[in-house]
Amino acid sequence: MASTAGETLAAAEQKEGEEEQVINPWEVSAKGGKIDYDKLVDKFGCQRLDQSLIDRFERLTGRRAHVFLRRGLFFAHRDLSDILDAYEKGEKFYLYTGRGPSSESLHIGHLVPFMFTKYLQDVFKVPLVIQLTDDEKCMWKGLSVEESERLARENAKDIIACGFDIERTFIFADFSYMSPPIYKNIVRIANCVTGNKIVGIFGLTLEDYGGKFFFPYIQAAPSFPSTFPHIFSGKYSNLRCLIPCAIDQDPYFRMTRDVAPRLGYHKPSLIESKFFPALQGESGKMSASDPNSAIYVTDTLKDIKNKVNKYAFSGGQDTLEKQRKYGANLEVDVPVKYLNFFLDDDVELLSIREKYGSGAMLTGEVKGRLIEVLSEIVERHQRARAAVTEEMVDAFMAVRPLPRMFH
Amino acid sequence: MASTAGETLAAAEQKEGEEEQVINPWEVSAKGGKIDYDKLVDKFGCQRLDQSLIDRFERLTGRRAHVFLRRGLFFAHRDLSDILDAYEKGEKFYLYTGRGPSSESLHIGHLVPFMFTKYLQDVFKVPLVIQLTDDEKCMWKGLSVEESERLARENAKDIIACGFDIERTFIFADFSYMSPPIYKNIVRIANCVTGNKIVGIFGLTLEDYGGKFFFPYIQAAPSFPSTFPHIFSGKYSNLRCLIPCAIDQDPYFRMTRDVAPRLGYHKPSLIESKFFPALQGESGKMSASDPNSAIYVTDTLKDIKNKVNKYAFSGGQDTLEKQRKYGANLEVDVPVKYLNFFLDDDVELLSIREKYGSGAMLTGEVKGRLIEVLSEIVERHQRARAAVTEEMVDAFMAVRPLPRMFH
Repeated sequence: MASTAGETLAAAEQKEGEEEQVINPWEVSAKGGKIDYDKLVDKFGCQRLDQSLIDRFERLTGRRAHVFLRRGLFFAHRDLSDILDAYEKGEKFYLYTGRGPSSESLHIGHLVPFMFTKYLQDVFKVPLVIQLTDDEKCMWKGLSVEESERLARENAKDIIACGFDIERTFIFADFSYMSPPIYKNIVRIANCVTGNKIVGIFGLTLEDYGGKFFFPYIQAAPSFPSTFPHIFSGKYSNLRCLIPCAIDQDPYFRMTRDVAPRLGYHKPSLIESKFFPALQGESGKMSASDPNSAIYVTDTLKDIKNKVNKYAFSGGQDTLEKQRKYGANLEVDVPVKYLNFFLDDDVELLSIREKYGSGAMLTGEVKGRLIEVLSEIVERHQRARAAVTEEMVDAFMAVRPLPRMFH
Repeated sequence: MASTAGETLAAAEQKEGEEEQVINPWEVSAKGGKIDYDKLVDKFGCQRLDQSLIDRFERLTGRRAHVFLRRGLFFAHRDLSDILDAYEKGEKFYLYTGRGPSSESLHIGHLVPFMFTKYLQDVFKVPLVIQLTDDEKCMWKGLSVEESERLARENAKDIIACGFDIERTFIFADFSYMSPPIYKNIVRIANCVTGNKIVGIFGLTLEDYGGKFFFPYIQAAPSFPSTFPHIFSGKYSNLRCLIPCAIDQDPYFRMTRDVAPRLGYHKPSLIESKFFPALQGESGKMSASDPNSAIYVTDTLKDIKNKVNKYAFSGGQDTLEKQRKYGANLEVDVPVKYLNFFLDDDVELLSIREKYGSGAMLTGEVKGRLIEVLSEIVERHQRARAAVTEEMVDAFMAVRPLPRMFH
């Protein structure tokens, strides 16, 4: 029997007589369709990212909070205040995020953590390490080492296209970066975590293959600066770390935070996002196996128009007359959800919500606006990605010091 | 509850109503004192190294079999015939052995696999890789990474002192050699072995710490030539491998042999030794925690004399009169066992056995001869070790091609 953390979660939840939802690094689903994020925050033991923390963020940085933060896409955290305290005192930190390169082309949901991380890098002027877990995809998806490495490099191009500053950014893939510094931390971390803990946190069974039992240490290691001696040596050897990620990655860093003090490091802080909804609605992550569930960064403008018009679940009424009379149900309307995360203009968004909700605006008009917004994002990404050369990939992935990382 | 493979073994054996013996990479003990090697060979499923195979070895190589082989210290194997077949056809292979660097000074038993491996290297003129599992000692013994690395380097000096040919020998420690080629093979191997298999083969429980679940892949990886692309590339990329080791290492390579064909490699062949007996008798391996249980390579001549005279278990009679009348029990006499493995001269050994067994020779005389033999070995080792410089260690451990490895 193959089992996942989800089943453990589910079992626990069913005991409580609640609705089943499965959230772990490999599976995201909710039986009723909609994920209960409040319950998830309680279950995981992380904290809600409330308005007072966002206000403090804006006050300290002097920058408007990113639309993903203002509108609740990044909604939870662990010890983000510690990072803001450090920043307030003029102390340094670094950012760490990553991606499991399981497919060639990314959808818009995949870009979310990178768009947000780029914003954080710009605001704080701090170094960033990006882990491409090609080994994970080899362990979980049965890809060959070579294919996983190829996908990692292709994905690196999309990540670079998000606009990261090469003077502050180190991108690495596990297979090619595996080296004494990261391996030593992997062993140090592994020596603090029992098999029971791994099985419990990640919902593995002994039927699973061997790699799955040690991958968690590999995702944990970049949370500690000594994993990157070419970047963080001397006075930066015990730097704090802030990890922007989707909430399904929380189990890895819960484990990492447990271990950190025993190894003499700070616990990494986290800032965690919800899942970007599928075009069909909020029933989980967008799915690579259904191309019509998401807008891909490789989609043509025609694809985008077609997908939004045909597949984006509408909260509008069936007929023109009913829409004019009752207005749309904004709670379930996917175009409004997408605009919520991608239309930066608060005034325009409010106006759309009011008009659409009251029936003054029709589904087709809202979808039209979304098509414009998405097309702009995708076109911009495609232009940037086309400009990424193999040499740029080599440069971002070169094991090198980052002398201007805090300038 | 901490558990070991031994308990699994023991449980199985107790079911059969037999005597308990525990043999795994971390524990060697037999309840009755003496290990039943026949039972072990059956249990592990390896083959006895019989006289006809030794004869063939001598015929093919034109060299007298090593005293360890002639006198049954190396007594079991897996597919050694495949290596001899290959050698007969003029095909190449490489040797792989290793050591877990858990202590600073080695005893004579630790030298056995290296003395034998050096002989094989001289006879076959083949390359050799030596793995120092500093990571293992960090996982099992709770040593720090730094202390494990220091011990590995100290042990490398003792290994080099055995006389290996630098043109054919690559010594590496896991922490410092960890790199993409070995890591890729670790992941490939791990993807073929379930958690159940690891737990079963190595007798782990989920109470064990994480490192123990992935170390077996790390000891397996050097059995495949692609782990060393700087040595084995092109026409050598699918070379056969022969592993000389003590039989307690068999579980690692049983697992490796299962996996090999699925990765397109030859199954490694093995040539396996018994454990060198403690001075107190054949109750298992010599123990680092009891300095009087073994002759150390750092012992002075006075230490050797004292240990042999005081601690070497004698099969001789209590009194001179009884010894003259009944002779010694050679089956339990440790000095005779040691001479059996270290006195190369067949005629002299036979003469000692006859005279001592019949009562013509006394314990003191046999011990005296053993002291001479051991003193010569230890003195020679100490001279050789004193000549090993840090530069030589660096040279043996340098990641480099071995262009003359088959010359």
